[in-house]
Amino acid sequence: MKFDKILLSHGSGGRLSQDLIQDVFLKDFGNEILDELNDSAIFKTVDSRLSFTTDAYVVSPIFFSGGDIGRLSVCGTVNDLSMMGAKPLYLSASFIIEEGLQIDDLKAISRSMKQAADEAGVKIVCGDTKVVGKGMADKIFITTSGIGLIPDGIDISPQRICSGDSIIINGTIGEHGIAILSQREGLGFSSSLISDVAPLNHLVASMLDEAGNDIHALRDPTRGGLATTLNELADRSGLSIRIYEDRISIQDNVRGVCELLGFDPLYIANEGKLVAIVKNEAKDRVLACMRKHPLGINAAIIGEVVEKPEGLVCLITRIGGMRVVDMITGEQLPRIC
Amino acid sequence: MKFDKILLSHGSGGRLSQDLIQDVFLKDFGNEILDELNDSAIFKTVDSRLSFTTDAYVVSPIFFSGGDIGRLSVCGTVNDLSMMGAKPLYLSASFIIEEGLQIDDLKAISRSMKQAADEAGVKIVCGDTKVVGKGMADKIFITTSGIGLIPDGIDISPQRICSGDSIIINGTIGEHGIAILSQREGLGFSSSLISDVAPLNHLVASMLDEAGNDIHALRDPTRGGLATTLNELADRSGLSIRIYEDRISIQDNVRGVCELLGFDPLYIANEGKLVAIVKNEAKDRVLACMRKHPLGINAAIIGEVVEKPEGLVCLITRIGGMRVVDMITGEQLPRIC
Repeated sequence: MKFDKILLSHGSGGRLSQDLIQDVFLKDFGNEILDELNDSAIFKTVDSRLSFTTDAYVVSPIFFSGGDIGRLSVCGTVNDLSMMGAKPLYLSASFIIEEGLQIDDLKAISRSMKQAADEAGVKIVCGDTKVVGKGMADKIFITTSGIGLIPDGIDISPQRICSGDSIIINGTIGEHGIAILSQREGLGFSSSLISDVAPLNHLVASMLDEAGNDIHALRDPTRGGLATTLNELADRSGLSIRIYEDRISIQDNVRGVCELLGFDPLYIANEGKLVAIVKNEAKDRVLACMRKHPLGINAAIIGEVVEKPEGLVCLITRIGGMRVVDMITGEQLPRIC
Repeated sequence: MKFDKILLSHGSGGRLSQDLIQDVFLKDFGNEILDELNDSAIFKTVDSRLSFTTDAYVVSPIFFSGGDIGRLSVCGTVNDLSMMGAKPLYLSASFIIEEGLQIDDLKAISRSMKQAADEAGVKIVCGDTKVVGKGMADKIFITTSGIGLIPDGIDISPQRICSGDSIIINGTIGEHGIAILSQREGLGFSSSLISDVAPLNHLVASMLDEAGNDIHALRDPTRGGLATTLNELADRSGLSIRIYEDRISIQDNVRGVCELLGFDPLYIANEGKLVAIVKNEAKDRVLACMRKHPLGINAAIIGEVVEKPEGLVCLITRIGGMRVVDMITGEQLPRIC
């Protein structure tokens, strides 16, 4: 590259845009579909159900302990597809870049996307780059969209949640949000707080192999945390979700920051966690299967679905009390993802 | 809505995010796929080739004569799919909103997206909303991705361009870029300058019905204008493109602003134009077919593909001279789309 910073001209659609695409994105993402460089990517499908999703990523800071906005933008969309039981196949990547961004930073983000895409086994097949003037965006925003294939017969949906189902999570909660927050606030112990951002599709595939449609619903507790995700599931199913405080694991350093700053870890974002709502009879083999996977070692059954109170999430506290856990209302942590 | 401006909490993923989705987006976009409100949309396909594309829209101002960022974000992605010969089916919409945006503005943009989607006959099936703090983005950025179906046997690609092909455009050039620019600069005559932003898929469908694979390549001359698009086609095909100045129509008011400000209309963005590279023997029936469509009334054959000079675009001027028309290099007009 002839420049060390992004210029407005890198977004013109002309020569400099092409240089940027060649020198940064194609070098990392190159594959037989993207390399065609047409207005859109072409791929073949057979008779099938496809899953389609999109997410914008505006995380600040763009580099954080355990990842960066690039890794997040790939994992987040891979995970959204996975939560429908889909096998993620193709991703698009759209960049809005502030004039003046260091090209080395963009290269690092691009490499990180490539690495996450490889981990997940997906291809980035189309993209777009726009540049806005200094002060008109904050460094870089990335929107990824994804297409996934839903295997024959698989039907994962909150509508399938039944009373008696078990609620399983694949590990500890709150790492992503607290890693971002502590970095942003310059807390001294931030280096030990590492985001959990990871692609969950392989874990989901092994769960579906093991239990198929005995897995009723899947969700990743991102923005708004576990509490918000469970509220959505309770709301969509018209049933009640009961969870037990003593079964929900939280890393000591995450708990420490939460106590220090007055946050409830139930509302903190995760980026490598999933909640599975599973037929009661299948819970033990799903749990055993999850624990065999590196991203499910700490999987635990944290609660169950009951009839009432309809649409609500209730937490049984350590001392045996019960409190209703509401959806997040304000914004605890803006730009967490 | 309980608020008249966007708050950070509207991006939290919690209660206010849900209100925003219900009160604004679902009201406009509602359809059986989107209404499921899952992490991703699900649709069925039969054996087919699909086209997948994405674009970020950062146009400033967000409302302009002839359209707004919402209409642009739908038409632009519909057109990218159409340029591959695909029938656009499904769109995703991802919003990055600056805190403080008027909710009425967001509603107007959303309605405009709905109207453009209806014109094109596409469905918006999934979406995402993020809110960033005041000063961290400029009002609103929208990324749309789209999926289209390529009809059996259709193969539209720059690789199919042959020496002797004719070059057809569906009308006058430069309206979109000049409409944006004149509005931005507060030029007094801006009201008479109207963006050409429109969905081209129906025009393309009628052209494919008429001539099928006798249409070799299609491109929409957006950022960088006609000159940049033709350069891409020359480059991709390894052939030369020759165009005639006196066959390229420009509205008088567009020409006036270009002369006043020293812009070359060949480099000005269009958002409702397409360039078709057509087998010579089919040019007259393609032209006749285009002129029957409201968006092709002023269609014209503006040049032809020749062997040499390889990879270059040459303009035959009114007085019979020839000059090489290069790709855009700097950035004439940032944030035009």
